[in-house]
Amino acid sequence: MGSCYGRNFRVQIFGQSHSAAIGVVIDGLPAGTAIDIDELRVFMKRRAPGQSAISTARREADEPEFLSGLVDGTTCGAPIAIMIRNKDTRSDDYRELRDIPRPSHADYSAHIKYKGYQDVAGGGHFSGRLTAPLCAAGGICLQILRNIGITVTSRVTQVGQAMNITDIREAEKEILNAKKDGDSVGGVIECVINGVPAGLGTPMFDGIENKIAAIVFGIPGVKGVEFGNGFAAVGLRGSENNDSFYMDGDTVKTRTNNSGGILGGITNGMPIVFRAAIKPTPSIGIEQKSVSLSKGEDTVLQVKGRHDPCIVPRAIPCIEAAAAIAIYDAYLEK
Amino acid sequence: MGSCYGRNFRVQIFGQSHSAAIGVVIDGLPAGTAIDIDELRVFMKRRAPGQSAISTARREADEPEFLSGLVDGTTCGAPIAIMIRNKDTRSDDYRELRDIPRPSHADYSAHIKYKGYQDVAGGGHFSGRLTAPLCAAGGICLQILRNIGITVTSRVTQVGQAMNITDIREAEKEILNAKKDGDSVGGVIECVINGVPAGLGTPMFDGIENKIAAIVFGIPGVKGVEFGNGFAAVGLRGSENNDSFYMDGDTVKTRTNNSGGILGGITNGMPIVFRAAIKPTPSIGIEQKSVSLSKGEDTVLQVKGRHDPCIVPRAIPCIEAAAAIAIYDAYLEK
Amino acid sequence: MGSCYGRNFRVQIFGQSHSAAIGVVIDGLPAGTAIDIDELRVFMKRRAPGQSAISTARREADEPEFLSGLVDGTTCGAPIAIMIRNKDTRSDDYRELRDIPRPSHADYSAHIKYKGYQDVAGGGHFSGRLTAPLCAAGGICLQILRNIGITVTSRVTQVGQAMNITDIREAEKEILNAKKDGDSVGGVIECVINGVPAGLGTPMFDGIENKIAAIVFGIPGVKGVEFGNGFAAVGLRGSENNDSFYMDGDTVKTRTNNSGGILGGITNGMPIVFRAAIKPTPSIGIEQKSVSLSKGEDTVLQVKGRHDPCIVPRAIPCIEAAAAIAIYDAYLEK
Amino acid sequence: MGSCYGRNFRVQIFGQSHSAAIGVVIDGLPAGTAIDIDELRVFMKRRAPGQSAISTARREADEPEFLSGLVDGTTCGAPIAIMIRNKDTRSDDYRELRDIPRPSHADYSAHIKYKGYQDVAGGGHFSGRLTAPLCAAGGICLQILRNIGITVTSRVTQVGQAMNITDIREAEKEILNAKKDGDSVGGVIECVINGVPAGLGTPMFDGIENKIAAIVFGIPGVKGVEFGNGFAAVGLRGSENNDSFYMDGDTVKTRTNNSGGILGGITNGMPIVFRAAIKPTPSIGIEQKSVSLSKGEDTVLQVKGRHDPCIVPRAIPCIEAAAAIAIYDAYLEK
Repeated sequence: MGSCYGRNFRVQIFGQSHSAAIGVVIDGLPAGTAIDIDELRVFMKRRAPGQSAISTARREADEPEFLSGLVDGTTCGAPIAIMIRNKDTRSDDYRELRDIPRPSHADYSAHIKYKGYQDVAGGGHFSGRLTAPLCAAGGICLQILRNIGITVTSRVTQVGQAMNITDIREAEKEILNAKKDGDSVGGVIECVINGVPAGLGTPMFDGIENKIAAIVFGIPGVKGVEFGNGFAAVGLRGSENNDSFYMDGDTVKTRTNNSGGILGGITNGMPIVFRAAIKPTPSIGIEQKSVSLSKGEDTVLQVKGRHDPCIVPRAIPCIEAAAAIAIYDAYLEK
Repeated sequence: MGSCYGRNFRVQIFGQSHSAAIGVVIDGLPAGTAIDIDELRVFMKRRAPGQSAISTARREADEPEFLSGLVDGTTCGAPIAIMIRNKDTRSDDYRELRDIPRPSHADYSAHIKYKGYQDVAGGGHFSGRLTAPLCAAGGICLQILRNIGITVTSRVTQVGQAMNITDIREAEKEILNAKKDGDSVGGVIECVINGVPAGLGTPMFDGIENKIAAIVFGIPGVKGVEFGNGFAAVGLRGSENNDSFYMDGDTVKTRTNNSGGILGGITNGMPIVFRAAIKPTPSIGIEQKSVSLSKGEDTVLQVKGRHDPCIVPRAIPCIEAAAAIAIYDAYLEK
Repeated sequence: MGSCYGRNFRVQIFGQSHSAAIGVVIDGLPAGTAIDIDELRVFMKRRAPGQSAISTARREADEPEFLSGLVDGTTCGAPIAIMIRNKDTRSDDYRELRDIPRPSHADYSAHIKYKGYQDVAGGGHFSGRLTAPLCAAGGICLQILRNIGITVTSRVTQVGQAMNITDIREAEKEILNAKKDGDSVGGVIECVINGVPAGLGTPMFDGIENKIAAIVFGIPGVKGVEFGNGFAAVGLRGSENNDSFYMDGDTVKTRTNNSGGILGGITNGMPIVFRAAIKPTPSIGIEQKSVSLSKGEDTVLQVKGRHDPCIVPRAIPCIEAAAAIAIYDAYLEK
Repeated sequence: MGSCYGRNFRVQIFGQSHSAAIGVVIDGLPAGTAIDIDELRVFMKRRAPGQSAISTARREADEPEFLSGLVDGTTCGAPIAIMIRNKDTRSDDYRELRDIPRPSHADYSAHIKYKGYQDVAGGGHFSGRLTAPLCAAGGICLQILRNIGITVTSRVTQVGQAMNITDIREAEKEILNAKKDGDSVGGVIECVINGVPAGLGTPMFDGIENKIAAIVFGIPGVKGVEFGNGFAAVGLRGSENNDSFYMDGDTVKTRTNNSGGILGGITNGMPIVFRAAIKPTPSIGIEQKSVSLSKGEDTVLQVKGRHDPCIVPRAIPCIEAAAAIAIYDAYLEK
């Protein structure tokens, strides 16, 4: 259990890195919604590997096949099932990992939870590859949200030591430096959702912050989520941090947006702003200390296979997809 | 909807700041569990107002009355209902708030969501007072968790500009300074959960991070949640951030705990560590700019009533309660 | 877990027959809905005991106290909590039942599930008394449904051997005969829901039949549920059983309603019709065979206490309440 | 929404009668469970069409392809996705149905719900074909349940006017008579679940009766569900209907099983017994009255295509599959 998200709009993800296919079942879309599949392909391609020097060499077309839910490109009310075949699988690379867990990967915790039966090939169900169906579902939501005036955009604000990034070359330099060393770096992605009407979300545990956090922490590597000015709010006084209201014509707005568009879990009509901290990719070429689970003794590990020195650029569409799903789920609760 | 949390262990909170009562219905506790009600009272008292110079003057005994679910102090399998009567209500203080929303409070977003029918007295269902039943439910979980070797502790690491707090007087000084100015400050609470076995949590959207975030963001004022070294991980290389494994006798441990005890959403047997950022209390004595919703024009607001200059000390048991509920819910999934 | 129903409109019931109180938390009602509490009292009174020669002598005012969720009699968007104090409790009557389970009562299955810690007094959480909060929640739904043109009515069609009842005296005679013998009888209640728009319900497992059955089987004693002509449809040919469509002005109707207003789990605009079979009350005055759980040997049991010879008349409002909750939950999904 | 069932064990069904594929995602199976795929194929074949004179001529191999969740035939903890390609599709047969709804089919109610965008080909998502993935999921549960000593069997007790069936030729005769007339008949299936331990199920709305009914009403054509002696209990006195307990060695048993193994929603260790009433197949060759939705006028309809004169024999494995899923979901709650 766990690979299912949403109440009014539900997304059930399936697959492992090297299973026959990965995919998603999407339930709750209104019938009569036209899906632009070409646009969805373009969106999904932003996440796909093998596109540049700074991402893994594994090549997957990530071609979404719609198994059900559409008639002539339009939703018919039945659940949409999307399948993506896994083609470029190299299970041999991962054989050693069943015994020697990779530091800061899910190998060991999955080994305990699944009693040694977990699929180790490519990280199995824990692989970043599983964000492809997330992007398929989220890409559909992005199209629907845009039709109702809601847009989701995001950008990298930090990569490794490069903070407050304005020029993407700063990030690229940091990543290539890490790659050269057989190492990796993480980053911060900031996501802004414009056009959200006031009044979405429900109090306490189904607020917009809760819903976004609950899905964003499902993206591999995310270790922190903050809204508005987040942790920085702590250093401010209430009089500095409070977003004072004013009338902009007939519309109530706030002069600042330290709250990130959410008060009491409910949107206030200002842009939703959140940031996700993504840790440096745990798969690195450098030799690391680990243990042999079968022998119960310390050992060293040299991770083979193809890995991103930084998943942050490819995580951008994932964050947008996750945010879109969360917002659409909240929107349907209206 | 929204005031309900958990799948295997379910908590349904009810009440408003000035309704007849607030409370919680708790479902999913195993029959035959003895509850130490005196200990629960002591725990709940840590959250209660009116205890010192740095908290609101409102006095509530916060006496939990068990309406159902216990026979002779022991769970009988039926849902536990706990009621806390609201006694010290002063609805007059809040009359103006129906028209003039307090900056960075839920007043305006609730007004839109509930079409003007929301209970404005004392913040209604959005009041920090609703954390009392959260603490009642969480306090029970803490007792059960302790019986299975799991402990939850937390401490304030930052208040306003006072960072890396080791001496509580640093925090107190920061709070009293703000109070003197009719202002407020926020803080960071770090929570550590020891004794959690490896293997709890489920992948993707029901991981431990997702579950903790989904409940902790339900505590009023929380604007950020991070696990392990969280946002600080971004500045590290993978080789620095990865937690290498070693054998401690028969037990697999990690030398560092930058992951905060969670990998792939699943516990790895190391302590769970997370931090929550709590914004400065929005209710301040200083005059603020706002709008009149009835007149559709700018105005100023002078918040009356009794308010905490800093809710962080009182939020500590709330964070512990929330963490305990999330962990117990995950524990029951085993 | 289990005492919670609904997805868009959620009802969480708590309490035992002899706990301090019983009650319900209701979440999902739109803010701004006026509740007629006097009318609710009248509805709940239809379920209350002690009203005639054919029901138990236990007297409970069943006075609902609204703890939260209303401001001046109108919903404010926060969960509604309703408490009913238990006053007339006589725990002594039930002491023997901890050891000797009553035939066809939940005593034994609850004993196994809750490992002997279940509340035996008055049937604990399994008591028919727990239908009082169900009626409180359902009574509110009935008011809301009526405002949108949906009415729920029901009647007894069979009591014991008296079938196709048209005169309530037939039922009364059957009940009094059983009472005279220290015995009990069951019955069939037919419920008709008029004014339901076509298009409510979702396919497969969240259809209207599934939703109604899932709540109606929660009423103690219900052992069968059928829709339209139900089991009688089996004896017909398709050409006889099919409900042919015709135009009634601009409205699509069916000439017959063997489907009970539901096709494919979705309403078709015709009245919803279902029947629930309620077994004879298991508590009877006649001596019965049972076992001593402590001694592990056969024994006999003479049930003391106050019992209905037939719960069917009092179950009528429960069936209506349950149906109203299910329909309103489906309605909110629209 | 709606095509998802279960809390601890979750089944999400997707597909339409003539979509590219149908299938199911199954979440919650413990890792390390070996699945006998050949046995599953044999089970699924019992439901498949085209096997005899009394079922539809449509031929589908119903070959389940496992897309994910298995490693070497054993569950790895990740969700299992099973896909069944639709091969023998003839959409032309169904073109007329978009305008003229078939009596007692979901055509009209789906038309309203999905605003005319529903997939009409072959009944779309409402087709009996969607029970193939239900059988795939249920067939897996049946294997797991058998390993823990629980068996599920069922048989036809009535077909049309042939009641208390003991010889399958009685049913066959009834079906062939209806087929000869271009008509159809329904039936009653009785399901018995042996080996269920006492103590499964939860009170009120998550009892075993509620859970079984909630899934069984998801099988097309089911219009009634009863447990134990069900509706027949109404004609008995309590003293006749009550199942008295006795000791069978160390085991508590009941002399009769009028309760069908369930008391208070919880199993009592006796066999679970329930019956489902399946209406006569609405698709018949005889001309029927209906309406033209586009013209808003009465018309007649001659249903073309391939149809079963009686789906009851093919529904047997569906009932078993549904029961197995419900029981396994309850079992995991333990």
